[in-house]
Amino acid sequence: MKKIKTQVGIIGAGPAGLTLAHWLKRNGISSVILELRSREYVEGRVRAGLLEQNTVDIMNDLGLADRLKKEGIEHDGVNLSFDSERVHIPFAELTGGRKITIYGQQEVVKDMTDAWLDADEELYFEAGASEIVDFDTKNPKIHFKHAGEDGILECDFVAACDGFHGVGRKTMPKDNYRSYDITYPFSWLGILANVAPSTDELIYAYHENGFALHSLRSETVSRLYVQVPNGESPDDWSDDRIWSELSTRLATPGFELKAGPIFDKSITPMRSHMIDNLSSGRLFLAGDAAHIVPPTGGKGLNLAIADVKHLVDGLVSFYKHNSTDDLDNYTQMALRRIWRAQDFSNFMTTLFHKQEEHGSYNYKLQKAKFDYLKMSKASRTTIAENYVGLPFETYEY
Amino acid sequence: MKKIKTQVGIIGAGPAGLTLAHWLKRNGISSVILELRSREYVEGRVRAGLLEQNTVDIMNDLGLADRLKKEGIEHDGVNLSFDSERVHIPFAELTGGRKITIYGQQEVVKDMTDAWLDADEELYFEAGASEIVDFDTKNPKIHFKHAGEDGILECDFVAACDGFHGVGRKTMPKDNYRSYDITYPFSWLGILANVAPSTDELIYAYHENGFALHSLRSETVSRLYVQVPNGESPDDWSDDRIWSELSTRLATPGFELKAGPIFDKSITPMRSHMIDNLSSGRLFLAGDAAHIVPPTGGKGLNLAIADVKHLVDGLVSFYKHNSTDDLDNYTQMALRRIWRAQDFSNFMTTLFHKQEEHGSYNYKLQKAKFDYLKMSKASRTTIAENYVGLPFETYEY
Repeated sequence: MKKIKTQVGIIGAGPAGLTLAHWLKRNGISSVILELRSREYVEGRVRAGLLEQNTVDIMNDLGLADRLKKEGIEHDGVNLSFDSERVHIPFAELTGGRKITIYGQQEVVKDMTDAWLDADEELYFEAGASEIVDFDTKNPKIHFKHAGEDGILECDFVAACDGFHGVGRKTMPKDNYRSYDITYPFSWLGILANVAPSTDELIYAYHENGFALHSLRSETVSRLYVQVPNGESPDDWSDDRIWSELSTRLATPGFELKAGPIFDKSITPMRSHMIDNLSSGRLFLAGDAAHIVPPTGGKGLNLAIADVKHLVDGLVSFYKHNSTDDLDNYTQMALRRIWRAQDFSNFMTTLFHKQEEHGSYNYKLQKAKFDYLKMSKASRTTIAENYVGLPFETYEY
Repeated sequence: MKKIKTQVGIIGAGPAGLTLAHWLKRNGISSVILELRSREYVEGRVRAGLLEQNTVDIMNDLGLADRLKKEGIEHDGVNLSFDSERVHIPFAELTGGRKITIYGQQEVVKDMTDAWLDADEELYFEAGASEIVDFDTKNPKIHFKHAGEDGILECDFVAACDGFHGVGRKTMPKDNYRSYDITYPFSWLGILANVAPSTDELIYAYHENGFALHSLRSETVSRLYVQVPNGESPDDWSDDRIWSELSTRLATPGFELKAGPIFDKSITPMRSHMIDNLSSGRLFLAGDAAHIVPPTGGKGLNLAIADVKHLVDGLVSFYKHNSTDDLDNYTQMALRRIWRAQDFSNFMTTLFHKQEEHGSYNYKLQKAKFDYLKMSKASRTTIAENYVGLPFETYEY
């Protein structure tokens, strides 16, 4: 039986867990991370790649942004297209200089993992947490199994950054929260292709055939998505069919889509999951353990980092000022941003996806919202400021 | 058989018909108005009382605003309340000086009727138009009955400003347009009361019991509404019950609702009606004949006046420049604003009405939208600019 002691026991070596560990270390608070999967698996997972200004600022502050600054691609805007007409949303101009950066989540994870291990800090891969106990006392414990051996991580606090299916959320007493589950009636078929992006900035498009998104990963890799009915399999979509559909849906005058070899196809369901309480005693949830948003606004990773910001505030207050006030406020502070992101993600999803018959009343309202973007700087600003992420101070009311 | 000839035959002496008549006269174009109802009926109808900046500007330009300027109450803002918390939207500050004016629709109608008749122009009350014929030729005719006598109004153009149930819309060839009908699952119980308003500016409120609106008519008359289920009768609502519900729903710290004698109770259904083509040959629809919006944004009257603006543009181009371009564009120009208003009215309706269980996911999104108003000047500006009405130039894209 392996026994470890630390101040904060972290489950999950994704962006939330790793950011938390680094940020706590910066403040002299120790932590140990347990990760169910192997290092290869975690670093190979294809996930989001859109970093809000806040996220980039935090990586910078934590000294974790060297490669991000070199390889990340700054975007000063996004293209929104509807029925082959396009509106450009210039972020910096509308938000006082804020931007987004395109940098794959797995790259963020690699950088933070390297830095953590280089500093000889503890992180156990393939260490499955089986149970969190005594979190209603001052000495919570995480039971886990690592390399065939049972272990116990004793700590002051447990941070469950272990995703939607993790042990953290399952451990929360059921009478402690209300949960919300929304499944949208469509999914995304996403591809990665070895082809230079056909656009400098992302393109979100409504088309009567359905939504399409042109995103990018690097100068040689493009990431694109098409809306498909739920239940569809990647096998239903030949490469030719995908490129043809993308070409049709993204078409605007003067735009030409370059096709190339597709090396990854996957289906992403569109769903929202929320719980209205992110803590119980000394157990705290952050990131996907606490919420899922549909990917349309690129919010998932950024919300996880924002959760961590509030959790760090709480833990620093506790250890440095002996106050539990900020920990007590963690749920409330985090939920403000999470609900804002849910609403924005829902807005972007319903604006650009085909939901009812093309030409229907709801289509007309979608079109009216898009036309309003053409008319109103205030309307364009609401998109820009939500997309780059509202500053933390915004939520302090 | 009475025969009359004019350039533009107008059906309906409501705000749309009267504004059109005055505006055409200003441009040297003759018109005659036929109105189904009596003068007393038309001038006594209790309707909207919220004039956008554009509407006030047009009344001023047409020399019809003498009494409006004296008796109208300018509002520089609106109060939005949610779960007993309030946000103020300052119009002028957010829109470069634009405001709304509270002045009853029946007062507008009185002023315009007086001015029209004082100028010895033709307006027939209790003149029911039965049929519009030959509107696909250059000589359309309106058959009507007045004082027991059949009549024919011969004209170059027919402007049907005769409301949702008028002959104008019924005359439109059915294969000429697509129509949209939305019925919201709740209604408004509206009251007029002899009591000084408890607020300087309107209050829209979400409460877990349902929506409430505190509006006003004058220094001594208040207009208030509560959301009620469809099918409710005013008889179900005693005065005490109404004031008690209003008091509960409008409650915010420091606010006190003054009650007083109720002298009018009525139920307003919440619905949207649209058609996507406002003309056929030389027949043009304007105002309620062409569209119904839910009353939550106060848009109905103002949309009617905006329709007339575009119709005047078309008729003036025709008579002065011998061009049908602007008439051909009438539907497109008018629909831009009408769909914007549908979307805004829908937004205000869904933001402030109780639709699902208090605490549900959709409630949480409503709350997130309200909280966003607290955070974001851009968000407050979108409310302000839609509420006071976007300038006409905004739609010229």
